[in-house]
Amino acid sequence: MVNLARADLTQPVLTLADLPLRPELVGEEPYGAPQLDVPVCLNVNENPYPPSPAVAAEMAEAVVAASFNRYPDREFRGLRAQLAAYLGHGLTPDHVWAANGSNEVMTHVLGAFGGPGRRLLTFTPTYSMYPEYARNTHTDYVTVPRRADFSLDAATVLDAVAAHAPTVVLITTPNNPTGTSTPLAVIEEVLAGTDALVVIDEAYQEFSSTPEATALTLLAEHGNLIVSRTMSKAFAFAGGRLGYLAAHPAVVDACRIIRLPYHLSAQTQAVASVALRHADEMLARVADLRDERDALLRTLPELGYEVVESDANFVLVGRWADRHLAWQQLLDAGVLVRETGPAGFLRVSAGTPEEMAAFHAALARVDAPRTEQ
Amino acid sequence: MVNLARADLTQPVLTLADLPLRPELVGEEPYGAPQLDVPVCLNVNENPYPPSPAVAAEMAEAVVAASFNRYPDREFRGLRAQLAAYLGHGLTPDHVWAANGSNEVMTHVLGAFGGPGRRLLTFTPTYSMYPEYARNTHTDYVTVPRRADFSLDAATVLDAVAAHAPTVVLITTPNNPTGTSTPLAVIEEVLAGTDALVVIDEAYQEFSSTPEATALTLLAEHGNLIVSRTMSKAFAFAGGRLGYLAAHPAVVDACRIIRLPYHLSAQTQAVASVALRHADEMLARVADLRDERDALLRTLPELGYEVVESDANFVLVGRWADRHLAWQQLLDAGVLVRETGPAGFLRVSAGTPEEMAAFHAALARVDAPRTEQ
Repeated sequence: MVNLARADLTQPVLTLADLPLRPELVGEEPYGAPQLDVPVCLNVNENPYPPSPAVAAEMAEAVVAASFNRYPDREFRGLRAQLAAYLGHGLTPDHVWAANGSNEVMTHVLGAFGGPGRRLLTFTPTYSMYPEYARNTHTDYVTVPRRADFSLDAATVLDAVAAHAPTVVLITTPNNPTGTSTPLAVIEEVLAGTDALVVIDEAYQEFSSTPEATALTLLAEHGNLIVSRTMSKAFAFAGGRLGYLAAHPAVVDACRIIRLPYHLSAQTQAVASVALRHADEMLARVADLRDERDALLRTLPELGYEVVESDANFVLVGRWADRHLAWQQLLDAGVLVRETGPAGFLRVSAGTPEEMAAFHAALARVDAPRTEQ
Repeated sequence: MVNLARADLTQPVLTLADLPLRPELVGEEPYGAPQLDVPVCLNVNENPYPPSPAVAAEMAEAVVAASFNRYPDREFRGLRAQLAAYLGHGLTPDHVWAANGSNEVMTHVLGAFGGPGRRLLTFTPTYSMYPEYARNTHTDYVTVPRRADFSLDAATVLDAVAAHAPTVVLITTPNNPTGTSTPLAVIEEVLAGTDALVVIDEAYQEFSSTPEATALTLLAEHGNLIVSRTMSKAFAFAGGRLGYLAAHPAVVDACRIIRLPYHLSAQTQAVASVALRHADEMLARVADLRDERDALLRTLPELGYEVVESDANFVLVGRWADRHLAWQQLLDAGVLVRETGPAGFLRVSAGTPEEMAAFHAALARVDAPRTEQ
């Protein structure tokens, strides 16, 4: 071990191995998809349509009006009221919590209800960030496979709950990275069958063919339900980092205890509030993106590719014997997609018509060998 | 226990006691000073001078230019370069990490180096948020008292290190809430005497009578040193929520592993970058605030009050037999100060001349009985 008290700032002699890093972090890499400067980015399920100049100008005005030298509103009830109004279903600010992305919202939930000696249960393949939430909150992370078609039934969930006794169950619908929706009837049966807290992650709900079939409709009857949402996807606000949840006020109170004060900056409250005032405009392209997703689901099989039925703004396409090679060949052609999900598949986001044309052109140049079906 | 599966959203039947809240959180209240609508707020050590209209306009332009529909720059090396340049001392982006306030920076440090079975050591009275950082990261929190005059010597620190075997030692200078600076010679002796990581929290360093006597000067020689800073205080950017640290690149790498991706939003990177471009202007009133602090330290004893020698932008004043009554009487007179710190004292921030006049006028109306000295 390097003598820490003698290390020199100007020399790279000090490595992570010289520091008392927690053992479970040794060898870990910072999480995240590659951020590359590529003409067409279809890798992180963003909405490709920026806010209009009018909305951007209003955001600018809101920033000018913000009080930067003073601490921000710690309870941000104004923003919570706007989020509640957007969600509808009789929700009020008392039912809503928000943070810097769903990352932080889930850290609050697991900080309050997970932690050492407690367990988070989820169903794979699913969002690759979940184990990081568990790791950072020292919550045990247990996964059970989805069915072969990536769907979920109540028996699978409740059997897993009985087997693993989780404090928190996490179901993602539409699921990332498969795009699979879980029917409300399944979710309702799960909620009625356990006293564990059940988080329904609806990050992509606005892209669903049936967006009105949301778990929000079950909140009135089920106190153990937490519905997680984000402004990063349909809302075209990934840069703004605003994740939120809807639940019973007692769940929100728990988040208020665990949050560190002033977690939402003045500028975040200001620009998110403007985005929510213009929700119709921010969401205006959701139907277009749904159409582009459906076009991918239709055209890719016509080209001989396998796809997974998707209710989100992305599609799994494959299968390649060496998907990394296919990913690289797409990248070489200027299109960045995501190497994630079940073996042999790549995940591609629905984009603008121009981006979809670029993707198809790039795909035509991919000659990585495919897996026999 | 309420049957969670039957609770009704419209009825407040579900309480925290019905949820599987972690036992150590039961009975806890959300942390934070009261946010009251009061003419004069001297309770959270803000810089009372807002950014100029020119800087605000530039922030607005930066927000218009931000790419809200895309995820933000995960590594924010541009902002880190600006922070490094502001700090000087040969630092580069590799030596700097930042997050949404020092709250989150410290959570990253304790997430990487603290956690279950590990210990954070600090010296009381000190910043009341530290136990929350430890709680949220499941780090043991151990405190040892400062000397009677709230100063720290190396023997006190190193004896406590030997007794408690912490992974992380946290020394605050100037200390909050006492304002006491710890000499660099003491910090250097501590750094040389332990392999524990030593965080020097310099949140108020710019207000010091000797701001150049910063622990940053010790980074080149001491790999176990982390210097914590914030833009919330001298920088007049409490609303912007930008805390940061300087340390060896390996420490930054550890923070990069533990951080959840995209923690700094596009708008935060945009407005913080503008504030740093105008550092001279943002910091222009620091000398005035130092003068107001010195005036408090001079005039309050003339009025028969006890004060604690302070190197920060606040002063402890007392002592009252019932400080809550004194706090309430000041509040009734339109001045909000902070009820914190050693028994009998209140903490008052240095403000504008008008705010200081209002404080003195309010103080003249306080008749809460004082403690015999």
